[in-house]
Amino acid sequence: MNIGILGSGTVGKALATALINKGHHVLIGTRDPNKLTEWAAEQGELLQIASPTTAARHAELLFHATAGTAALQALEAAGYENFKGKVLIDISNPLDFSQGFPPTLFVKDEDSLAEQIQRAFPEAKVVKSLNTLSADLMLNPTLLNGGDHTIFLSGNDQDAKDQVRAFLQGFGWRDMIDLGDLSTARGTEMFLALWVRLYGSLGKAQFNIKIVQ
Amino acid sequence: MNIGILGSGTVGKALATALINKGHHVLIGTRDPNKLTEWAAEQGELLQIASPTTAARHAELLFHATAGTAALQALEAAGYENFKGKVLIDISNPLDFSQGFPPTLFVKDEDSLAEQIQRAFPEAKVVKSLNTLSADLMLNPTLLNGGDHTIFLSGNDQDAKDQVRAFLQGFGWRDMIDLGDLSTARGTEMFLALWVRLYGSLGKAQFNIKIVQ
Repeated sequence: MNIGILGSGTVGKALATALINKGHHVLIGTRDPNKLTEWAAEQGELLQIASPTTAARHAELLFHATAGTAALQALEAAGYENFKGKVLIDISNPLDFSQGFPPTLFVKDEDSLAEQIQRAFPEAKVVKSLNTLSADLMLNPTLLNGGDHTIFLSGNDQDAKDQVRAFLQGFGWRDMIDLGDLSTARGTEMFLALWVRLYGSLGKAQFNIKIVQ
Repeated sequence: MNIGILGSGTVGKALATALINKGHHVLIGTRDPNKLTEWAAEQGELLQIASPTTAARHAELLFHATAGTAALQALEAAGYENFKGKVLIDISNPLDFSQGFPPTLFVKDEDSLAEQIQRAFPEAKVVKSLNTLSADLMLNPTLLNGGDHTIFLSGNDQDAKDQVRAFLQGFGWRDMIDLGDLSTARGTEMFLALWVRLYGSLGKAQFNIKIVQ
């Protein structure tokens, strides 16, 4: 499957590696390909470094993995027309580090970054997921507790959510809770306020939550 | 132990019942004792309905369980002098239901209700805990998953946090994560944004999170 990743930081690269390991063809869209040269050389032939436009155009499934503050701008660079009808898995968070750690959220409570993206790209099918845990675990759930922990799905298009659920099952995810429409992403984005304090208290990013019922 | 509860709604009553079941003497502080008459008659001799001032004055340990929007006003009614040196377990959340469900938070991100209370009552030892789960589970953790799920502690006074930890252990809590100073309560209060969506999606309040490491 051709999978596009918009965002070439730590998170984008971690996703790319995990996707390649599963045999997917990955297009990382970046405006600065040179910074990826060394890393890309280690990834093999399934990785392609491309412009944001090319990555979005050729992707059957898109990941949004840019830093939250640059999100809308970075997505616009990929061209509105390339999002039409596509499933966009938004794993980003609206983190504002301008005052240091812990970050605050630049959108919250009555809106979310996921909804901002959906409004800016009304023809994309935005599904918020995976934003509640460390990049290393996003597509490698079995690294932690045998994979027995929880992620969430938020989105306005049920087919798109079902497609993302099936896709993530392929990576070992079993406990995925559909929270409802995309406004429920406010909940998972605001969870980051607890995540960053847990990160501070536990001294590591290798943790997640399990919903116990 | 004499335990004061400020707040006589669903949460305050659930706490009172659990505390009485453990043999504690409970003083519920309320400005409207008549509304509790029927319920109080079923609780037996360990329950005392009192004024907020009396409840706070005679308590060795205090719970704050009023609705978030009325919190500071309700606590002030108990008299500043009665909080001096006392451990105040703040289980409230800054929920604003004025626009319906799901609620928003009237303080968040750069401040918290717990910190507002600590600033208003500088001589109290505020410990934020138990605000991340349903009232029925707060002092009855073993009702869910054999008690194997997580709560959090935030506070500026380490002795007070240790005291709360020991107290909650007596009710079956084993997994309690000390997040740090009281500003970390921003994390657990903002978690409510996810809690209310889980409540909507799961259709019940009988759940909690377990931190998996």
